[in-house]
Amino acid sequence: MTRPEASGEIVTHRLPIVFAGARIDRADPVRSDPARLAELMQPHARLLRLDGLEPVLPAGGGLSWGTLAEADPAAELVFLGLRDGEACFAAVAPGLAGRAAVPMPEVWRMIGALPDEELALYGGARMLVDWHARHRFCARCGAPTVLAKGGWQRSCAASECRADHFPRVDPVTIMLVEHEGDLLLGRQPRFPPRSYSALAGFVEPGETVEEAVAREVQEEAGIAVTEVRYVASQPWPFPSSLMIGCHARALSRQLTIDATELEDARWFTRREVELALAGDPAAPLLVPPRRAIAHQLLVWWLAQD
Amino acid sequence: MTRPEASGEIVTHRLPIVFAGARIDRADPVRSDPARLAELMQPHARLLRLDGLEPVLPAGGGLSWGTLAEADPAAELVFLGLRDGEACFAAVAPGLAGRAAVPMPEVWRMIGALPDEELALYGGARMLVDWHARHRFCARCGAPTVLAKGGWQRSCAASECRADHFPRVDPVTIMLVEHEGDLLLGRQPRFPPRSYSALAGFVEPGETVEEAVAREVQEEAGIAVTEVRYVASQPWPFPSSLMIGCHARALSRQLTIDATELEDARWFTRREVELALAGDPAAPLLVPPRRAIAHQLLVWWLAQD
Ligand SMILES: [Zn+2]
Ligand SMILES: [Zn+2]
Repeated sequence: MTRPEASGEIVTHRLPIVFAGARIDRADPVRSDPARLAELMQPHARLLRLDGLEPVLPAGGGLSWGTLAEADPAAELVFLGLRDGEACFAAVAPGLAGRAAVPMPEVWRMIGALPDEELALYGGARMLVDWHARHRFCARCGAPTVLAKGGWQRSCAASECRADHFPRVDPVTIMLVEHEGDLLLGRQPRFPPRSYSALAGFVEPGETVEEAVAREVQEEAGIAVTEVRYVASQPWPFPSSLMIGCHARALSRQLTIDATELEDARWFTRREVELALAGDPAAPLLVPPRRAIAHQLLVWWLAQD
Repeated sequence: MTRPEASGEIVTHRLPIVFAGARIDRADPVRSDPARLAELMQPHARLLRLDGLEPVLPAGGGLSWGTLAEADPAAELVFLGLRDGEACFAAVAPGLAGRAAVPMPEVWRMIGALPDEELALYGGARMLVDWHARHRFCARCGAPTVLAKGGWQRSCAASECRADHFPRVDPVTIMLVEHEGDLLLGRQPRFPPRSYSALAGFVEPGETVEEAVAREVQEEAGIAVTEVRYVASQPWPFPSSLMIGCHARALSRQLTIDATELEDARWFTRREVELALAGDPAAPLLVPPRRAIAHQLLVWWLAQD
């Protein structure tokens, strides 16, 4: 396999990346300072109200905040950071890992109306709470782990192990692949009818971002790419990905679709993408909603010369 | 906290990123095809010879390959991919997690002379083998896990859990911070005397690459940055990071150094960096070796106008 060339270009406008832009000071030094943390962990400190992983939404809209005084005494508390000087926490409900997951359409119905800044704060909290719920035991030795450093670590309780574990963030490449002005988009069977999006896949151990992009496009669509360029990134809290948005140039046009990954993949013209983004019923495809980085990548692409 | 703007620029030359460029077909479809995998997992298939995590190095230099016939029957086997049409595997030695880690200087003495392509293949294999050694139990329920999909998954053996776990890749930002033509570099206490490198830190749940860069520079050096640009990335196998190399522009010059992270941080002139990269004894600093992406970022920076 040839090594794809790392390459960028001037991003001339700011992309409104959803789940980014949380206005919170993560206050990293606090996490490692038990005295300072204890001082902040008072009954009047702010608690992001969650029902499992989902936000408790008051009638007036927006996230709901209570105080630590109302937290389940059996819950673990994670320190989200400081907001307007106030310490903010979220609780990991006991037994959360055993609960049935709320289906994604239902989650979107709940959080879709949140302002972007609250969505970002909620997304970060959700990732952290979910990680704690799913990492109650030490992967190294199987013993129970305990929350440490305000929730930014878990430590093995077994004296002969004592391994430390850290919240997981999984890098995923998502890429616009272009050939002579047309764009390659694909659809998975689970997508709504007529919906197409950018190809995507996890970065694996032992590869660069550029190599991951090239491998995924080769695997899913059977074509080679070059000139992989980074465009933008997004934290994606379902459950905890770092979406790395790229653009690449295809060396050929003939697709060989991996049917286990994609139901279809096609080349779309600039005009077709433009109509789809404008919500025109005459467009031959539907594009992802604005909360997805794929949407922002399409907006970025149309703005290029 | 203001949201830093996502921004790139044309990378005009290819950076010789070490640990990248492995010439192996990861053959993803094989992993999910037990029959095909069993067909490839024959006694004559190729086995990368490892002593724990370190390579077995023959007198003539280079990596050493044996066959599956010589693998410890108690070892788990991971499928690295196809090379020149031949299936390549590595073995996870029983009890590997309990072994004392080989100190890094010793590891570098062993692998430092490997050609880049072999270093890349070894790095990818090491990440995967190490992950298996440290993830023998289910983080969700504590039960033992078993290797699945040729080593690209572990599955919980407990019938009431059955959680799947995937090899971990931790995104890390590493950044050149520039102010009026000077570059900010720092040193950790563990660095060799006079050595300085780019600031770096893990991407956390809920932030973009650009936000992680801005937060780390703020935390470690007390300054705000803007115009964060992606430059290049590198898989780093100690134990399993994805280094995301960036450039950012500092909004001020006055440093407030976080003494828990850095022993020192300073602004260096272009000329000083140039001398250091040239190995000139008159340089006021030593820079990281070429295997580190920080080195390649410095080379890239000097090549910019
Ligand atoms: Zn343990
Ligand atoms: Zn389990």
